[in-house]
Amino acid sequence: MSRQMARPGGRSARVQASVHAAVRELTSEVGRDALTVPMIAQRAGVTPSTIYRRWGDLQELMSDVAVERLRPDTAPKDLGDLVSDLTAWAEQFFDEMASPAGRAYIRDALLGDPDGSNAGQCSAYAAEQIDVILTRATERGENAPDTEAVIDHVVAPLMYRILFRPDGLDASYARRLVATAVAPSHKGPPPTA
Amino acid sequence: MSRQMARPGGRSARVQASVHAAVRELTSEVGRDALTVPMIAQRAGVTPSTIYRRWGDLQELMSDVAVERLRPDTAPKDLGDLVSDLTAWAEQFFDEMASPAGRAYIRDALLGDPDGSNAGQCSAYAAEQIDVILTRATERGENAPDTEAVIDHVVAPLMYRILFRPDGLDASYARRLVATAVAPSHKGPPPTA
Repeated sequence: MSRQMARPGGRSARVQASVHAAVRELTSEVGRDALTVPMIAQRAGVTPSTIYRRWGDLQELMSDVAVERLRPDTAPKDLGDLVSDLTAWAEQFFDEMASPAGRAYIRDALLGDPDGSNAGQCSAYAAEQIDVILTRATERGENAPDTEAVIDHVVAPLMYRILFRPDGLDASYARRLVATAVAPSHKGPPPTA
Repeated sequence: MSRQMARPGGRSARVQASVHAAVRELTSEVGRDALTVPMIAQRAGVTPSTIYRRWGDLQELMSDVAVERLRPDTAPKDLGDLVSDLTAWAEQFFDEMASPAGRAYIRDALLGDPDGSNAGQCSAYAAEQIDVILTRATERGENAPDTEAVIDHVVAPLMYRILFRPDGLDASYARRLVATAVAPSHKGPPPTA
């Protein structure tokens, strides 16, 4: 993660925004493997030393960009019931993570930090969003599974197949996973791809 | 994957074995990030050009080593019933994948190939082992889930938590996942970590 907090509107925030934007632009232009810190610095209009001082090295920067990119920027939609809310969230999660950019960000998040803190942060983002949806459902009086169960039966299968078995995967798979995860006492056969 | 098939006992097989062993030894001695092709070649007793000619570059070699390392070398044990067979397999899978070496190999397999073929191969290894266990159970007359359901509800949660949420994970989680996946018509609440 970034070594400084980015105060919105401050110079730190502007540097982070410009460096992150430069990484995203250059990744699509020249490819992930061709990126260098001087190249990113030039595009971002900062000195390489600014990047080294703040991020340490390219891999830490890439991991930081990935985690920032994977951070949800809005609360889950409230569509009035648990199945609708969780289905909408899972479809959006699938679309974002299964995109070429999403897959690349997941890879960088997994690789950028040997201690796994960035991967853990990505998972925490998903758990926080699910918490919001399940708490809302409980407040409505709906029977909701717990967050870890949704992680096991919705998030984990989606991420596993995106990373390891992407063939033929689409949003209908996300919908089937949600339907099973929120079925009363989880009866019925599990979804299959 | 290796650009040549390794004929058991042939020079190709000996080169692959010595290079793979050198990668494993040096990874534990100097760490993954310090590895270089000349260093690996010296340890393996081959020329760097032998490695470049066969593997292309270090990342492809590391991905190849990872896939080879993750390949099961024995058929799943036949303990006489589905729950015992799948539990034993899942516990072994968890132990191997959750180990520091296992996590590193998974990372390399995911990173080494932009087209995802190596990650797909790792998943195919798991699916093949599960197929053997489920076919055996069906032949015994047991009611067995299909392979994709076991991928969704046993393999995917294990891999997801190993990669993203490892805190507090142990083999009892693998046992709970199996118990739910093979429960008649999957009744009962899902396991949680």
